[in-house]
Amino acid sequence: MNIIIKKFGGTSVSSISKIERAISYIKKARKSGYSVVVVVSAMGQETDRLLKLTTGLDEYKKTDDISSLLAAGEQISSSLFSILLNKNNIKGKSFQGWQLPIHTELSYHNSHILKIETKNIKNSLKNNEVPVISGFQGINQLNRITTLGRGGSDTTAVALAASLAAKRCDIYTDVAGVFSADPRIVKEAKKIDEINYEEMLELSSLGARVLHTRSVQLALKYNVKLQVLSSFTGKKGTMLTKKNVYLEKQIIRGIAHSNNETLFTLIDVKNQPGISATIFNALSKENINVDMIVQSGSAKDANVTYAFTISKTDAKKAEAIMNKLKSKVRFNDMFINNNICKVSIVGLGMKTNAGVANTMFTELAKNNINMHVISTSEIKISVLIDEKYKELAIRSLHSIFKLNARKK
Amino acid sequence: MNIIIKKFGGTSVSSISKIERAISYIKKARKSGYSVVVVVSAMGQETDRLLKLTTGLDEYKKTDDISSLLAAGEQISSSLFSILLNKNNIKGKSFQGWQLPIHTELSYHNSHILKIETKNIKNSLKNNEVPVISGFQGINQLNRITTLGRGGSDTTAVALAASLAAKRCDIYTDVAGVFSADPRIVKEAKKIDEINYEEMLELSSLGARVLHTRSVQLALKYNVKLQVLSSFTGKKGTMLTKKNVYLEKQIIRGIAHSNNETLFTLIDVKNQPGISATIFNALSKENINVDMIVQSGSAKDANVTYAFTISKTDAKKAEAIMNKLKSKVRFNDMFINNNICKVSIVGLGMKTNAGVANTMFTELAKNNINMHVISTSEIKISVLIDEKYKELAIRSLHSIFKLNARKK
Repeated sequence: MNIIIKKFGGTSVSSISKIERAISYIKKARKSGYSVVVVVSAMGQETDRLLKLTTGLDEYKKTDDISSLLAAGEQISSSLFSILLNKNNIKGKSFQGWQLPIHTELSYHNSHILKIETKNIKNSLKNNEVPVISGFQGINQLNRITTLGRGGSDTTAVALAASLAAKRCDIYTDVAGVFSADPRIVKEAKKIDEINYEEMLELSSLGARVLHTRSVQLALKYNVKLQVLSSFTGKKGTMLTKKNVYLEKQIIRGIAHSNNETLFTLIDVKNQPGISATIFNALSKENINVDMIVQSGSAKDANVTYAFTISKTDAKKAEAIMNKLKSKVRFNDMFINNNICKVSIVGLGMKTNAGVANTMFTELAKNNINMHVISTSEIKISVLIDEKYKELAIRSLHSIFKLNARKK
Repeated sequence: MNIIIKKFGGTSVSSISKIERAISYIKKARKSGYSVVVVVSAMGQETDRLLKLTTGLDEYKKTDDISSLLAAGEQISSSLFSILLNKNNIKGKSFQGWQLPIHTELSYHNSHILKIETKNIKNSLKNNEVPVISGFQGINQLNRITTLGRGGSDTTAVALAASLAAKRCDIYTDVAGVFSADPRIVKEAKKIDEINYEEMLELSSLGARVLHTRSVQLALKYNVKLQVLSSFTGKKGTMLTKKNVYLEKQIIRGIAHSNNETLFTLIDVKNQPGISATIFNALSKENINVDMIVQSGSAKDANVTYAFTISKTDAKKAEAIMNKLKSKVRFNDMFINNNICKVSIVGLGMKTNAGVANTMFTELAKNNINMHVISTSEIKISVLIDEKYKELAIRSLHSIFKLNARKK
């Protein structure tokens, strides 16, 4: 059976007419001989509407209740999608996470998929139906609804593609594909036709909002052929590949940015063994992930400055934790900066091209943009800058790395 | 364990503040030593909002998809209710129909509950939690979501009360209890403190919208102590009882009415054996229930007039069916009347008081109200009249049967 997975995001199923357009792509694929399995997100602003019901209740939110509240959003869209398939003379069948089931870890948020039972889907396909799976949700061993985190429907789609050995997984979204930078900031940004998994992984984890990071990891791990494309046009989008597709001249594949960080700076921290562990253990206990970390002042026994970034949504919680730790960690002062932005350049070409960092830092310096923190990996460099320089930094880097002039 | 079931309808959970008020009743019951199990409907207009998503898709609605679409409404309210219990320092735990599970028949609409597994609820109560069950929904043997029909949450509540051997089942609604007639029509209508199950059964099946008919049947069958009360005041409402609570003078307990009927009249039907069966089989095949039936013209071999009423929502479907049957049934003409109303008087007192029908018909005649169809049982008389006489008929019957003067 030639199975293809088609995942439609919130904007792609936000109305009857948009669902009908999605169905036109399904018809086309079926005419080409594919068996289609659909994955849907909640309709348009539904998840936000449901979250809004709990406004002011943050501290009382029991994690499993929030998950079952939010999962209702996908239940609505998958049911409606199936009804509309029927209208189009295609037998649809909706499946919620618990109906397959999609087994996940115990945790209720950002839960990971452990296993997908495919029997029901295969039976449905044998009956010439189009199974419509609610994305974003699963159940844990306690038979409670879990959710995979924002954007988790991408991960559902890729996990299904892996479990069903699908020929391809198409992620329909509201953009034409993956771009060299956010087109709203850089008007010369170009759609990338083919991108390496690792590059995509870096781009999406660094803030490019096209694909859920975990879905790319999963696609890489299970060798899923993944395509991102526009649900408005249905035209060829960006195909993920294992090949190294960069051209000689093109060292950098794309630029990502993220506004979601808060920078904590601890001043005059007494430098004693175990302090880092104390800080980061306390944060991780509350499920707060630290992203970038820097420690300055290297003389032994002298006081040092600690700086680290965490997600903006965790800032309040982290502040309380740090205040509690003050007597133990012994720092003189703490600054919390929300007006920062992380800008990253990503490209496999870095591996074999020296001087990329130098080019980046020089370009930023030329524009008088100060860097608070720098972090690097083999194929990316991220810098933390003041948010007000965001556009300037992205545009000038896009230009200096010749992304504007990139051939299609 | 002293278990009490508290069911809150849509208007009782339509906002955070209303849910908080519902929780105040739960607190009170827990203080009195009860273990509370909650059943909720979807919030306010949620079910209508969800149905509206399928506007214009009636003929394409696959029954199982609609059920899973609508069931999302209760999933939202039960999850939110549990979050708010937590805010009130009560451990809540939401359960969807499939999580208990609540087993139903195969059919997706108006499905009947076969069995409720109570293990999860009992465990939850042992943990000092308040389980919050989504009403209206269950699963069938195919592991698909089913729904119990509009108002089905009442039935969920009573079925739970029976399964858990609860001390009482409180149905919170937006009225103070069961009234002798609709208070919006008869301002002298009185709240009934105690009502016999059979009387309640007739009243609710005849259009009194306070309780789902099937919930009353179930309460009677399993001897569930059932109370209807206002979620706005929490004051004592109407208690259902097995006793015959009518007073000597008070033959009639209450007056019900319904606007949901359509009257079909077939003119000059060739009177041959099996014709009734043909008509009603054809309708029942499409799940159309016939309510009142009358056949006039009794001479053998002569043509007769057939009249029957069905639910207004089925009128279009029934019209098509009747037109298809025309050659087989051989009638000359068909009239379809939507401007009718069924008015019924109900009371155990009828059994032992002759002349009730006579009083009713005389009173209607006095007001020049013509009756199209009459149907009777041991404890009720229903008449079909033109809709324009509805208020006049109800008020004059309420008065002639001395319901206005009824002592509390």
